[in-house]
Amino acid sequence: MKTKTLYYRLTLDFRQLENGTIALGAEQQHYLKKVLRLKTNDRFIALDGRGQSWLAEILDNRARLLEPIAGSNELPVPVTLMVAIPKNGFEDIVRGSTELGVTRIVPLLTRRGLVTPSAGKLDRWRKIATEAVEQSERQIVPTIEEPRPFLETLEIVENRSKPQTSSYICVTRKKVDSLVSRLPDRKPAEITLAIGPEGGWTDGEIDRAIAANFTAVSLGKRVLRTITAPLVALSLINAYLEG
Amino acid sequence: MKTKTLYYRLTLDFRQLENGTIALGAEQQHYLKKVLRLKTNDRFIALDGRGQSWLAEILDNRARLLEPIAGSNELPVPVTLMVAIPKNGFEDIVRGSTELGVTRIVPLLTRRGLVTPSAGKLDRWRKIATEAVEQSERQIVPTIEEPRPFLETLEIVENRSKPQTSSYICVTRKKVDSLVSRLPDRKPAEITLAIGPEGGWTDGEIDRAIAANFTAVSLGKRVLRTITAPLVALSLINAYLEG
Repeated sequence: MKTKTLYYRLTLDFRQLENGTIALGAEQQHYLKKVLRLKTNDRFIALDGRGQSWLAEILDNRARLLEPIAGSNELPVPVTLMVAIPKNGFEDIVRGSTELGVTRIVPLLTRRGLVTPSAGKLDRWRKIATEAVEQSERQIVPTIEEPRPFLETLEIVENRSKPQTSSYICVTRKKVDSLVSRLPDRKPAEITLAIGPEGGWTDGEIDRAIAANFTAVSLGKRVLRTITAPLVALSLINAYLEG
Repeated sequence: MKTKTLYYRLTLDFRQLENGTIALGAEQQHYLKKVLRLKTNDRFIALDGRGQSWLAEILDNRARLLEPIAGSNELPVPVTLMVAIPKNGFEDIVRGSTELGVTRIVPLLTRRGLVTPSAGKLDRWRKIATEAVEQSERQIVPTIEEPRPFLETLEIVENRSKPQTSSYICVTRKKVDSLVSRLPDRKPAEITLAIGPEGGWTDGEIDRAIAANFTAVSLGKRVLRTITAPLVALSLINAYLEG
């Protein structure tokens, strides 16, 4: 059995590149050192946000770029999955969507899906994601964020205003186009998918998402569980991105 | 809450239509009366094998056609899923693939996945399929066949020789085209998908399938579990059939 090293990843601002190193902001240092518990000389994957990744090493408050990474099994475009936490089965969502290449998972608290996960869940989910990365032969562990209210997430999205991100909110029993029919001809820089709770999004949530530049789309005629819908959406996105 | 009636379905030979009724063969009578435990005057869905369905009623050894069925959430083309039985999780496969519109599930015994299900499993799987039909708002319960060896299944496929069926065997770590790239421009009359065990198909199994007119295809760069692969394949087939 071959030994394999797994890495976390972080997007850096490559415009700050100086002598092969990039300064880490306070938030980035916190994420690498406190959240991921990495130390000086530990390695991670630095992304330039345009599809290129580098093996990088932590040097106090800077990152040194070691070598570019090629030929990976990672998706060419970062894909964020925002998904309501169901009563049961969030672990299945983490495992399955990691297998399907997801870059970042944001567990959502929604109006009709107010499931607050117990302490320790986040560590458990991250452990499952790491196992799924190994099993599916990926190189990079997806980021799993702290659960947060959906509307709060939308405010962050709006404040950032990334015109090159294609964002979709998947809805049920509404007259909307299919996800596949709304994918742009030219690949966007990032893709965000939002999947609602078993009881569905409220109309208010859908309206707020549309105001935040999300497109409301359907995943097919049948009603899918919150556990199944992310896998369907990611399957279609994979086929779109990788042909 | 509205009451909903669920039906089983069976393909009949509409060339035998006589005064609004069709004679049932011995095998069909056995399936309706012994396997599904339906009685005279019970109803089921009769398929003509060309995409049209009728509500039908059992009359001793004949079926009376009552009315055509329109506007359903069923896929326009029957889709058969042949899938190796994993150590755990076949119930998840039944539930998820039923949500995604599967018509028929054939649990497979393969060289590297020799899991023989315990007695009573088939009834349990059929019960799960019925629940998933209700939850996903389908009209028709998929057929779940008795588990059988993969090679035996291929012999049956070959003997029938249906030129209008598109059959795919999903393989991992082989240089083959993606499923999406091998779907025909014109929709076939039937689609069959074969998904292997966690350890993968043997080369012999793949060769035999190709000899039986299956096309070897990939579901993407990453290695999927036997539980995830059917959902990915069916998601892509749904998008193909329903746009």
